[in-house]
Amino acid sequence: MADAGLGALLLTTEADLRYFTGFLTRFWESPTRPWFLVVPATGQPIAVIPSIGAALMRATWVTDIRTWSAPDVADDGITLLADTLREVGGPVGLPAHLESHLRMPLSDYARLQKLLPDTLTDDARITARLRALKSPAEIAKIEHACTIAGRAFARVPEIARAGTPLDQIFRRFQMLCLEEGADWVPYLAGGAGPDGYADVISPATATPLVQGDTLMLDTGLVWDGYFCDYDRNYTVGPATATAQSAHDRLCDAVAAGFDAARPGMTARDVFHAMDKVTTGGAGGSEAGRLGHGLGMQLTEGLSLTGQDDTVLEAGMVLTLEPGVETRDGRIMVLEEDIVLHADGPRFLSPRAGDRMLQV
Amino acid sequence: MADAGLGALLLTTEADLRYFTGFLTRFWESPTRPWFLVVPATGQPIAVIPSIGAALMRATWVTDIRTWSAPDVADDGITLLADTLREVGGPVGLPAHLESHLRMPLSDYARLQKLLPDTLTDDARITARLRALKSPAEIAKIEHACTIAGRAFARVPEIARAGTPLDQIFRRFQMLCLEEGADWVPYLAGGAGPDGYADVISPATATPLVQGDTLMLDTGLVWDGYFCDYDRNYTVGPATATAQSAHDRLCDAVAAGFDAARPGMTARDVFHAMDKVTTGGAGGSEAGRLGHGLGMQLTEGLSLTGQDDTVLEAGMVLTLEPGVETRDGRIMVLEEDIVLHADGPRFLSPRAGDRMLQV
Repeated sequence: MADAGLGALLLTTEADLRYFTGFLTRFWESPTRPWFLVVPATGQPIAVIPSIGAALMRATWVTDIRTWSAPDVADDGITLLADTLREVGGPVGLPAHLESHLRMPLSDYARLQKLLPDTLTDDARITARLRALKSPAEIAKIEHACTIAGRAFARVPEIARAGTPLDQIFRRFQMLCLEEGADWVPYLAGGAGPDGYADVISPATATPLVQGDTLMLDTGLVWDGYFCDYDRNYTVGPATATAQSAHDRLCDAVAAGFDAARPGMTARDVFHAMDKVTTGGAGGSEAGRLGHGLGMQLTEGLSLTGQDDTVLEAGMVLTLEPGVETRDGRIMVLEEDIVLHADGPRFLSPRAGDRMLQV
Repeated sequence: MADAGLGALLLTTEADLRYFTGFLTRFWESPTRPWFLVVPATGQPIAVIPSIGAALMRATWVTDIRTWSAPDVADDGITLLADTLREVGGPVGLPAHLESHLRMPLSDYARLQKLLPDTLTDDARITARLRALKSPAEIAKIEHACTIAGRAFARVPEIARAGTPLDQIFRRFQMLCLEEGADWVPYLAGGAGPDGYADVISPATATPLVQGDTLMLDTGLVWDGYFCDYDRNYTVGPATATAQSAHDRLCDAVAAGFDAARPGMTARDVFHAMDKVTTGGAGGSEAGRLGHGLGMQLTEGLSLTGQDDTVLEAGMVLTLEPGVETRDGRIMVLEEDIVLHADGPRFLSPRAGDRMLQV
């Protein structure tokens, strides 16, 4: 912050607040109330939050907690926040770059800008750069989430067979994740069809699995506030040659990405290593990237694209997520989670085997 | 929009985009990519979105879909969006008031403002006002979500008894919601303790239930993109006189709120009707409100506070959520979901009975 000439950071999103405070609650699902954390260049963080959150914030290490009764139509914490920022001194940096957003109403932000002229600026990516480097405790939590998902993925043959509707598989898979120890399952995507699926973001329909289909499930489950994010492909009955061949290529791409993912290399290097395997070096696909950072959010930080020149460092946790087209309009995607140590990467997800899993 | 002098709306959040398009995906869990919908005063909506979403958007009624390969460090859709907005013509209104936020990086918003000087303004609450009035199809979806939660709540005696750790109850309750038909369970809160709980937003700990405890579970589960949001209080063994008396008062408060929730009355009127029962008219509590709008979000639209003068209309869906202090530092909260028809309100949640449920 001294290097960037900042007097304080102003944070408004769930992950940014939790990173500095440990404030963990699912209450963020309600968009009604804004929550603010002021991190001064010198001194302790100050929470400026709705009174409904005071008891939980008092259970964290934060001691300076200032509250108002939200929602307040006339002044939803803005005067209290402005007074706090004035006391701390600016300039005040806010996350403003890729992946970030401001979680407060635009009209209130305009009001804050008026109360504090020439004070609000961007945070010089300080917040994102801090969050990108995980501590051993954070890595252990992500690995634990990966382990839970691994047990759920191993049990998919219990819930999926030819004839099972995809939406039922989605419900049952989330139940498996919870039964195996997930706190909650914020993310599940997937698809099924002959030799792959049309896209990886559509909700499940009631269409039943058919012999010969490839079924993919991709989950971001949470344990103690940290995500895993990886997928598995299953074949309904014996794998078709097309599907198994795509699976082989995806495993090769993951291996190539893994080998390239060393401190000192860039996100772009990892992208090109994988893209060489999946497209012969064509430069990517419709998905836009072949992996990303992972942690308190399902996706955060760097992107494995041909553009991202972020230098890899020990402590980063990434997903490797290559995809291939199997036939016209159908794709298969494989995703794994890795952590970078000084001496190289390590798989956090229990790496997919050579043969497609059969249900 | 003509009344407000707007040429178009610019929408960026999951619920706002889905309201106008039907674009339903859990992919929003990833904060990486911005998504834009332009709703012109005349003509069809235009989706300006990452190419990874094109296939799913093509399955909606939207036909004008413009894509870029996101994430793009150099230009994450901003030029494409600016060109689209120029073509449509301004002024361009963005949701800017209570409950809203702008889901794109601040630096990109600044860039958009530079590309389109004197064009971006607020949406005169048009989006929020439209979304507040539910169609019969929307009401049916919310009611279905309520019915699913009702079946899960009825089965809580299967998963909770003296000695069961609260975090295990949370996991098992989410499994019940899924088993009973929820698509997913974005929200679960709760608490347990003698004669109530300390707050309603803390995550579950491993503390086991004790005979005489009151256990509360509050869920926002989703079915076909629509939420329910209500809770139930259980007594572990026979109810204490304090807990049953609090339950009685909460039921009375819900009844008073229900009677006041008629088209033509205001949010404030409903608040005062309930607050009279819970505090004798003291004007509320730390929670800040006694209920809220409900629909595509766990909470949306009006707030039942002493300040909110929103006039109630047929088609609104609300929660009634009174809370009482039972003894020093402990509270109990009861929540129900209702819909307003022209001739009065109707319960969507299967109303809590006079006696506390026993586990």
